[in-house]
Parts: sequence; C-alpha cells; structure tokens
Amino acid sequence: MERRKRAITITGISNIDEVQPGDDLARLIVERAGQEDVKLADGSILVVAQKVVSKAEGRLADLRQVTPSALAVSFAEQYDKDARFVEVVLQQSKRIVKMDHGVLIVETHHGFVCANAGVDGSNVPGKHIVSLLPVDPDASAERLRKQIEEYSGCKCAVIISDTFGRPWREGLTNVAIGVSGMEPLLDYRNTVDEHGFTLHASVLAVADEIAAAAELIMGKLNRIPVVVVEGYSYCAAPGSARKLVRSPERDLFR
Amino acid sequence: MERRKRAITITGISNIDEVQPGDDLARLIVERAGQEDVKLADGSILVVAQKVVSKAEGRLADLRQVTPSALAVSFAEQYDKDARFVEVVLQQSKRIVKMDHGVLIVETHHGFVCANAGVDGSNVPGKHIVSLLPVDPDASAERLRKQIEEYSGCKCAVIISDTFGRPWREGLTNVAIGVSGMEPLLDYRNTVDEHGFTLHASVLAVADEIAAAAELIMGKLNRIPVVVVEGYSYCAAPGSARKLVRSPERDLFR
Repeated sequence: MERRKRAITITGISNIDEVQPGDDLARLIVERAGQEDVKLADGSILVVAQKVVSKAEGRLADLRQVTPSALAVSFAEQYDKDARFVEVVLQQSKRIVKMDHGVLIVETHHGFVCANAGVDGSNVPGKHIVSLLPVDPDASAERLRKQIEEYSGCKCAVIISDTFGRPWREGLTNVAIGVSGMEPLLDYRNTVDEHGFTLHASVLAVADEIAAAAELIMGKLNRIPVVVVEGYSYCAAPGSARKLVRSPERDLFR
Repeated sequence: MERRKRAITITGISNIDEVQPGDDLARLIVERAGQEDVKLADGSILVVAQKVVSKAEGRLADLRQVTPSALAVSFAEQYDKDARFVEVVLQQSKRIVKMDHGVLIVETHHGFVCANAGVDGSNVPGKHIVSLLPVDPDASAERLRKQIEEYSGCKCAVIISDTFGRPWREGLTNVAIGVSGMEPLLDYRNTVDEHGFTLHASVLAVADEIAAAAELIMGKLNRIPVVVVEGYSYCAAPGSARKLVRSPERDLFR
C-alpha cells in the first residue's frame, strides 16, 4: 500500500481591514504576515477579500451623491429599500437576471452573476458609503501578486474573493472574482481513472474552492481579510477569473 | 493591535477507495488514519467522498439489468448517450430541471439539483457499473460519525461530499450532500459589524465550503476519498444537508 500524506494549511492574516484609498495593500499584507508569523513561500496562494481591495482602490460610492432613476425608486418603494443603493446596483450592472421578491440578481460589467452587483454596505466606514467591486479584479490580482512577489521575494498566486449566492442551495459561499498566477480551472477531461473509465465532464473550479476554503478563516466579523493557503500544487499560469464565467452559449440558466 | 493566528489544516487519507459493499467504512477510515499518521481529535471534521460511501452501501447499478424507457432511448439517441445510463438517471430523479444540449439536470429524490442525479460511472470497477447517491446521505453521515466516534474516541463531524456544477460559472465544486454533527449553515443575520452596519443577507454555507476545501486534496485521481479538517470551530448540532437545499418557495431559479 502506498503511503502518502498530503496537507493544505490555511492561515489568516488579520488587522489589515482599515485600509484607506491609495494604501499599498501588498506592503500591508507582507508586513502583517511577517508580524503574525505567517510564512510566505514559493507556491503560496494569497486569498484577499474583495472588500479590502476595493477600499485600497477607492472603489466606494457615497449614497448622498446618488440620484436614483425612476426604476430604482419604484423597486425600492415596493420592497422598502434605499433607492440610492438600488441605483448604484443598476449602474454596476449590464443585465438584470432577476428582479423580484426584493432580490436584485444581475450580471455585472465583468460578467459575474450575483446579488446587488457586489455592492455592499457592510464593513465600510460610514453608513452612506458602499463598496463596489474592483473595475478589473484580474488586474487588481495581478498588481497585488507582482507587488507581493517583489516585497516578499516569493513566487505566489493571488485570488480576490467575494461572497456570492447560488440557485437551488441555501447559503452563500466565497468564489474567485480575480485570479493571477494560477489556472483557476483544473481540467480532468480525457484523463482515465484506474478502472479505465474516461472522465468526461470533470473540470474543477479550483480557484472557487480555494476562495471557499479561505472564507472558513476569513468569516464575516473576524477582521481577517487575507488568507494564505500553503500546500496546494496549483498550475502556474497568468490566470484570470474570466475563465470561471460561463459564456452565454454554454449557459443553460441564463 | 490584536495578534491572532488562526489556521485550518486539511489532510488526506488515502487507499480506502477499493471498498466493497458491506465493508465497515468507518473502521477502514480510522485504521488508515492511524497508519498514515493523520490525527483524529475532538472537533475534527471528516469529509468523505460520496463514491466511497455509495460503494460501501452497495448503491451501485448494473446497466446490463436496466431496461430503458422510451424517453431515455429518445434522449440517448439524440445525444449519443447510453440509454440505460439515462434511464438510471431518470429513476433517481423526481423532477427534470433541464434536458437539453445533451445535459440532464434534475432534482433528485433528496431535493438536490445536479447533473445526472449524481449517477456516475467513474472510479467504480466494471464498465457496466454506475454509482448512485446514498438513499439518505444524512443518515449515512450520522452512521459514519457515530462509528468513527466509537472507534476513535473522538467527537467529530462528518460531511459526505459530491461534485456538482452550478449555473453561470464554469467548473464544478464539491458540496455537502450529507452532514452530521455540525450546523451546515452559519447565520450572521442581525449581527452588527464594527461600523455598526447590520448584516442582512449573510448566511454562509460552511458545510459546502468545507466540502470544497476538501476537494483540493481529494482530487479526482488521487485515491484520497477521505479528508480530515482540523482547526475549524464548527457549531455542534445534529446537522443535515437538507438545510442546504433551497425550498421551492425561496428559489427564484426553479
């Protein structure tokens, strides 16, 4: 019998959530990792919560400066929502997928399908302030990765994660909205199992699984916006979360 | 500044995939864990791949004994599939969600929405044999948990995982289809963040996130059907994966 021990370790880095627009997030991450004895090494994957990336990039909107459209006012009145918030969501959307029961599920300009276009009022300072998704989360991930590599001297991958719902199942899970340094999908198609059966449909969304794993440490109130994953042998590549977005032609649930 | 180090470790247990119907899977798991120096402790979460549970429970179908219905034959002919396989899928379904482009997405008798009702020909011996989901995966998880607790002396949780697709995003991820010993959902609703913002929609599907994390070690060809997760503080409870199934009234994408 073969003896094999494989392990993945997921460690949180805390106290980097009070980020201001313009802050050097990569430097904060590398410094805090050092202070908290979280080792960065070649092959580390850093999962960074969208919220802290958006804060550093100044991707915030002040609801006091928003003039809601008639559609936003109408939907907000029906469901007791803030029309200015609804307006921001509409502005961040390129297609409305569902707009019913007070739920607004949209396709963002990036192609992500999620509630409220990722616009979120939690964990931002000021009750009129909401955070928006980064304009180009892959570019954000790439920038972070290059800076982290420079500051730490380690070759790594970066995943920017956000918390999305999904049809049919209760509860939210974290998924990858930006990826740099690794293939987000692991393709088993046409590989053969030990019984000679050819795997047909198996493409695994490993970047989403890594984001989900990281959420277990991040939590919502733990103030742990960055997580380091060690021990996962990813396939090094430029990487892009766009590969995780199903194209309209392949989407049976558009 | 607060200093806090939190870590989760995910370790695989290998060489327990050649399970036969009637085998004592819990004993195999505890024995192999010992042989591979994978420590079980109070608070361990064991994630067990559906395939190995189905094998131990004899949840296999022999396609040579299946007589396909007219519907199965018709669909199979259109898309170059095995009509007997399609028939088994139909028998494991209580509702067809999509049946198009050669894809058969159904609601299983348990209420899970997934491709092919979880029927799968990979990693089972014999090319005419397919595995079916356990009849009651929560009961399977509970049985395993109680036996593992008895054999190991440790209080643990058990998640039975399977690999499902999802709309809008490419790639599959592992989710929980059976849960025992922990709450599958972590409910943040009405908690308040440090800025005084009340979280409204945040219920996290932590059992699905743990299943996803475990998949990173399991892989599809690694022969690691069981994974031990250490360091995650779950909420102890009887637990049930049925809580992860969205009720028809709450499902906008039924």
